[in-house]
Amino acid sequence: MAFLLKVTTPSLSYSKPHKTRFIPPAKLPISLLKPPKRTRISCGLIDPDGGKLVSLFVDSSQKELKKRQALSLPRIGLTRIDLEWVHVLSEGWASPLKGFMRESEFLQTLHFNALRIENGAVVNMSVPIVLAVDDEQKGRIGESTKVALVDDSDNTVAILSDIEIYKHNKEERIARTWGTTAPGLPYVEEAITNAGNWLIGGDLEVIEPIKYNDGLDRFRMSPMELREEFARRNADAVFAFQLRNPVHNGHALLMTDTRRRLLEMGYKNPVLLLHPLGGYTKADDVPLSWRMKQHEKVLEDGVLDPETTVVSIFPSPMHYAGPTEVQWHAKARINAGANFYIVGRDPAGMSHPVEKRDLYDADHGKKVLSMAPGLERLNILPFKVAAYDKTQSKMAFFDPSRSQDFLFISGTKMRALAKSGENPPDGFMCPGGWEVLVEYYGSLAPTGNGKVPKPVPA
Amino acid sequence: MAFLLKVTTPSLSYSKPHKTRFIPPAKLPISLLKPPKRTRISCGLIDPDGGKLVSLFVDSSQKELKKRQALSLPRIGLTRIDLEWVHVLSEGWASPLKGFMRESEFLQTLHFNALRIENGAVVNMSVPIVLAVDDEQKGRIGESTKVALVDDSDNTVAILSDIEIYKHNKEERIARTWGTTAPGLPYVEEAITNAGNWLIGGDLEVIEPIKYNDGLDRFRMSPMELREEFARRNADAVFAFQLRNPVHNGHALLMTDTRRRLLEMGYKNPVLLLHPLGGYTKADDVPLSWRMKQHEKVLEDGVLDPETTVVSIFPSPMHYAGPTEVQWHAKARINAGANFYIVGRDPAGMSHPVEKRDLYDADHGKKVLSMAPGLERLNILPFKVAAYDKTQSKMAFFDPSRSQDFLFISGTKMRALAKSGENPPDGFMCPGGWEVLVEYYGSLAPTGNGKVPKPVPA
Repeated sequence: MAFLLKVTTPSLSYSKPHKTRFIPPAKLPISLLKPPKRTRISCGLIDPDGGKLVSLFVDSSQKELKKRQALSLPRIGLTRIDLEWVHVLSEGWASPLKGFMRESEFLQTLHFNALRIENGAVVNMSVPIVLAVDDEQKGRIGESTKVALVDDSDNTVAILSDIEIYKHNKEERIARTWGTTAPGLPYVEEAITNAGNWLIGGDLEVIEPIKYNDGLDRFRMSPMELREEFARRNADAVFAFQLRNPVHNGHALLMTDTRRRLLEMGYKNPVLLLHPLGGYTKADDVPLSWRMKQHEKVLEDGVLDPETTVVSIFPSPMHYAGPTEVQWHAKARINAGANFYIVGRDPAGMSHPVEKRDLYDADHGKKVLSMAPGLERLNILPFKVAAYDKTQSKMAFFDPSRSQDFLFISGTKMRALAKSGENPPDGFMCPGGWEVLVEYYGSLAPTGNGKVPKPVPA
Repeated sequence: MAFLLKVTTPSLSYSKPHKTRFIPPAKLPISLLKPPKRTRISCGLIDPDGGKLVSLFVDSSQKELKKRQALSLPRIGLTRIDLEWVHVLSEGWASPLKGFMRESEFLQTLHFNALRIENGAVVNMSVPIVLAVDDEQKGRIGESTKVALVDDSDNTVAILSDIEIYKHNKEERIARTWGTTAPGLPYVEEAITNAGNWLIGGDLEVIEPIKYNDGLDRFRMSPMELREEFARRNADAVFAFQLRNPVHNGHALLMTDTRRRLLEMGYKNPVLLLHPLGGYTKADDVPLSWRMKQHEKVLEDGVLDPETTVVSIFPSPMHYAGPTEVQWHAKARINAGANFYIVGRDPAGMSHPVEKRDLYDADHGKKVLSMAPGLERLNILPFKVAAYDKTQSKMAFFDPSRSQDFLFISGTKMRALAKSGENPPDGFMCPGGWEVLVEYYGSLAPTGNGKVPKPVPA
């Protein structure tokens, strides 16, 4: 997602025969038009993919037994990113997926961005959720049909059953996921290049919910918990906003305006899921702890209404795979109960790692998302262009008839201001949020070698 | 397709939840079980994708008018491969596609290997069928909504209407189609690397059927003509065999055995579509003219029954894109009336252009094909392993219990024999067919620089 809202207008007509699925109230299922009668999950939230939210936790009565069983199994150590995927799978963000992908799921993901499930229906799945093992680990697994997955203290995290080991063709995986094999893709360098040459799929049983003990676990609501929260609030529409950057008033304007539009459409209580990504991000992104601090300030400053906003952390790691990844971001939010998804310019995009251009066409993300198999039920809301309106000293939707009144503040410009301790124009971001950014950039010790400094925790 | 039949057994169980779609007779539509009452196209052949076979030829009463109109339009020259795609599109092999892809079709092809059509149904489309233009051509087109497509003598071949010009991101196209961006992919070097940086999509109107005047046009039956031929023969099943290599007795055994199996399943008259690919192939493949000469000998020698075999040329150029391309090969044959498709080891595969390995996993082609969106109606028939049985002096299905009796003759070995004028073991290929190969390889003047010699026409 671009930091600034230099994006296409919502009037952009999508490629035929696909139209933006901004469904008018008349076409909505009755259950979504009526306020729910009881505060229960069945109150009318969108169904999870596959009909039932997956939960892969071991029943508490079985925990000790499973832990003992695990001691006799081949043990596979998990990296931080692997653990984040265990987290994602365990809570059902990837429903109906029940574990790391077997080859048939991996191939369908790479070729079709979708999985066909038992009943013949198609669910979206665009990003491979796979676990790599190397030759030595494969040798140790031998003929075992199960393995224990362990953290870096050798504690059992999960058991993977009915396993299937298949070749990890990294080149093909990278090419089909990112549309490039250029060196320097962050997730590739972090999680693929040095990973094993085999992938191991199977059914996952997770012993305990994944916790990070970083003070932010309270924000990590599961899809089930989010659905309960939306039901408790009597939400009759949930609109999700994925982000991995600080929130400025242009974002806030967009979110507020989206709620207004949903009310106009006939919804009685649209709730915003403000959903920062909490897994792996590249070194020059603002770290999660600082972003959460900034988001809290934004809410405290009243820029967003806490009554109709749920802030939670999405535990997925980031691929930076543009049009491929935005489908995953949207699909996971369906599982958390969102039936509207806000999509910006160049979602999940980044600069080409080698060439001087953006890796993806800025419009491909929303086009691909609007056509993606398995996402037909989700209503896609394209960003409106917001910019700083000098006449009003605030962020406003761009009006081309008086373009000279507007100032586009690039992400680079904003970072430069925060790094030098300067202030952006009044009304660009709430002062409390801006202070967090200034503090964060100030905390980065210059490395002297031109490299990105290592971020400190907030 | 591999030249030899070192392939998995048909008992191989596919990835869950997908099963090989070798449907028992009981599940077949009634229309396929009964012999057709009349020799008409409606006799029960599989429906084309989208329900109606596309035909993009200008009505004869309009030809002169269209040609005159074309003279006032911007003119875009077609390469040989472009012309082959015009041929493919014009006859409806890519039904329901009505012209070169616009961006929405291009994106769906790259990301989903499938297109959603107006009625919400999904059809398979795995290979981009696109036309590139460069900056100069784009400039000449300007604001025109139509262009004339011309051959290298500047004759109007077709008009492209309601055009859309969009960016040709070659790296992304190559990565998502081939799963690699390694240099040396034949189609890429021939048709993409030096092509323009824009793609132009639109509706195609073709003035005259494409002819090559190479003595082989009589073999180039359109999907409509093939459907008529199958109906004339009262075919109640059509099984297609795509090839781009000479036919040996292992292939013949497989085709004969497939017919036997279809008869056992309850079909009364299964007809084979022996369908060599006639468009662009790489330099070290046997050229079409020699292959057709070889195929004719095979039929003359009675290895295949002419009563139940239709030999025709498939006009598509070859991508060598493995699991992605095999879907195109299968989908196009649905449009020609085939409801069974024989798939071999490593279909549309080749060696990795840089690394010492095959580009694709040999089993991925049939796995991907069996799971591909839009191909659910097609019955996939995996190859059985055939090899030379020394005890019988003929090609036979491999029997692992007496593996020492079998000889696997690799394509490399066969080429070496033919080049040196030696004979393969009796019963490997009919003598007439083998003579054609010896003649072909003998006609290749050594280049002296270790490069592939330029083939001469048969």
